[in-house]
Amino acid sequence: MERTFRLTLEYDGAGFEGWQIQPEGRRTVQGALEAALARVLGRRVRVVSSSRTDSGVHAEGLVASLRAETALEPDRLRRALNGLLPTDVAVLDAALAPDGFHARRDAVSKLYRYRIWNGRSRSPLRARRSLCLQRPLDLAAMGRAARDLAGSHDFAAFQAAGSEVGSSERTLLRLDVEGAPGAVVDLHFEGTGFLRHMVRILSGTLIQVGCGRRDPEGMPALLASRDRRRAGPTAPAHPLSLVRVTYGDSIAESSS
Amino acid sequence: MERTFRLTLEYDGAGFEGWQIQPEGRRTVQGALEAALARVLGRRVRVVSSSRTDSGVHAEGLVASLRAETALEPDRLRRALNGLLPTDVAVLDAALAPDGFHARRDAVSKLYRYRIWNGRSRSPLRARRSLCLQRPLDLAAMGRAARDLAGSHDFAAFQAAGSEVGSSERTLLRLDVEGAPGAVVDLHFEGTGFLRHMVRILSGTLIQVGCGRRDPEGMPALLASRDRRRAGPTAPAHPLSLVRVTYGDSIAESSS
Repeated sequence: MERTFRLTLEYDGAGFEGWQIQPEGRRTVQGALEAALARVLGRRVRVVSSSRTDSGVHAEGLVASLRAETALEPDRLRRALNGLLPTDVAVLDAALAPDGFHARRDAVSKLYRYRIWNGRSRSPLRARRSLCLQRPLDLAAMGRAARDLAGSHDFAAFQAAGSEVGSSERTLLRLDVEGAPGAVVDLHFEGTGFLRHMVRILSGTLIQVGCGRRDPEGMPALLASRDRRRAGPTAPAHPLSLVRVTYGDSIAESSS
Repeated sequence: MERTFRLTLEYDGAGFEGWQIQPEGRRTVQGALEAALARVLGRRVRVVSSSRTDSGVHAEGLVASLRAETALEPDRLRRALNGLLPTDVAVLDAALAPDGFHARRDAVSKLYRYRIWNGRSRSPLRARRSLCLQRPLDLAAMGRAARDLAGSHDFAAFQAAGSEVGSSERTLLRLDVEGAPGAVVDLHFEGTGFLRHMVRILSGTLIQVGCGRRDPEGMPALLASRDRRRAGPTAPAHPLSLVRVTYGDSIAESSS
C-alpha cells in the first residue's frame, strides 16, 4: 500500500548546487535524497520540497513529501536514510502524512534567516554561515525600511532579473531586524512564497540602508518602481538559511 | 622603542596543523600570524602564545604576545593584520601590555569547551564543530565522574602515550557537564595547564561514561593507575575550542 511520508531535512548548503536536481548531474540535495531513497526502497521515487533553495543556501528544516510503497516505519526510514546520506545532509524527522499531502502546495509559510556578523573584527568561526560586516549597522534605519517592506506588495524590484512569473505579488508576514550592532544581526523573512533571489535582494537592500548608503524611507518608491536595477545587490547565499516551514494544523498534528 | 603587544585570536582549526610552527613548513596559525606581522612591521618577530592547540582545534580567544619596535597604535595593528591574514584566522583584539608580559607564562587559567551534538539525528550544520552522538547520554553519570576528575591530580593516565614531561600533576579548576540529553552537551575544562591530549582523553573517557560503557565511579582508580591504556580513547579534535585565557588583574586592566 502506498503511503505518504513527510521528511524534515537539515543540510549545509556549501557543498550543494541548491535543492533541485539539475540536468547536468551536478550535486544537489534532491539528488542525494532521491539516491538514498532508491537504495532504501528498492525503486526510484520523486520527492517534492517546500522550497527550492539556491546554491549555497542552508536548511534547518526544509520539508519534503513523497509517496512510497513500503512497510517501513517512518523512524526506521529516517535512520536508514541518515546512514546512507552524505554527511552534509540529514533527515531530522520522518512522519506519515495524510494522503495527498504536498510539501510545496500545502505550505502555509516559510521562515528564512539572513545572518550578519557585525563585530569589530571579522569572525573566522562564523564566516561560513554569516556575512561579516565590520561597519556598525544602523539597525533603527533598517527596521524602518523593513516596516515598509513587510505586508503584501508587488516585489518585482526584488526578483532576479529575467525571472518569468505570472505575478510578482507576494506577502511578507514578517520582516524583522534582530540583534545588536557590533554583534549578530539576523534578518527574518517569513512569507507565504518568495520570488527568485527575493530574500537575498531584500537583504542586500537592507544592508545598504544599515550602512547609510540608502535612504530608509525609500522603500515605497522602490516597490512602486518595479525596477530591479533600483534595488540593492543580491547578497551572498552562504548567510541564508531556511529555518522552518509551517503547515496547517491538521497536517502538523498528524505528523507527530 | 620596543613595545609589548597582546593579541586575542579567533581561528577555525580545520585548515591548520595546530598553532605551532612546524619545521616542514606545514600550515599553522603561528606561521600565518608571523607572516602577516612581518609584512606589517617590515621585520620578522616571534610570537608567544597562551596555548599550543592541536591540529583541528579551534580558538575563540587564544592570547599571543610579542615585542615589536613600531609606532602603530594597537587597533591599527589589528586592522592591518586582519587585512592580511587568511580568512580562517583573525585578530579580535590588540592591546599594549606591560613590558615583560608573556602570554604563556602569565596565563592564570585556560578554558576549553568540548561540544557534543546529542540530538536524535546527526546535524550537518553542527558536524564541523561538534561530535555527533545519537545515543542519549547519561549526563548525571558524566557529572559524577567529572566531580572526581576536577581538582589537583596526577593526570598521567590522561596524557598522550610517549609524552615526556617533568610532572604530570595538573589542576582542573572546573570540569562541568552542561546541556541536555537530546540536544547540545558541552564539557567545560578550566585549568592552569594541560598535558598533551589531556582534554581530549578526558572527553573520550567521559563520553564512555555517558554511553554506559564505563563506571562513573571508576575515576579515582583510573587516576591512581597512571596508565594511559586504562583511560578512554582520545576524542576527535574538531569539537574542541579554546574559549578564553585568563590573566591576573593588573594585566587585564592594562590591556583594555
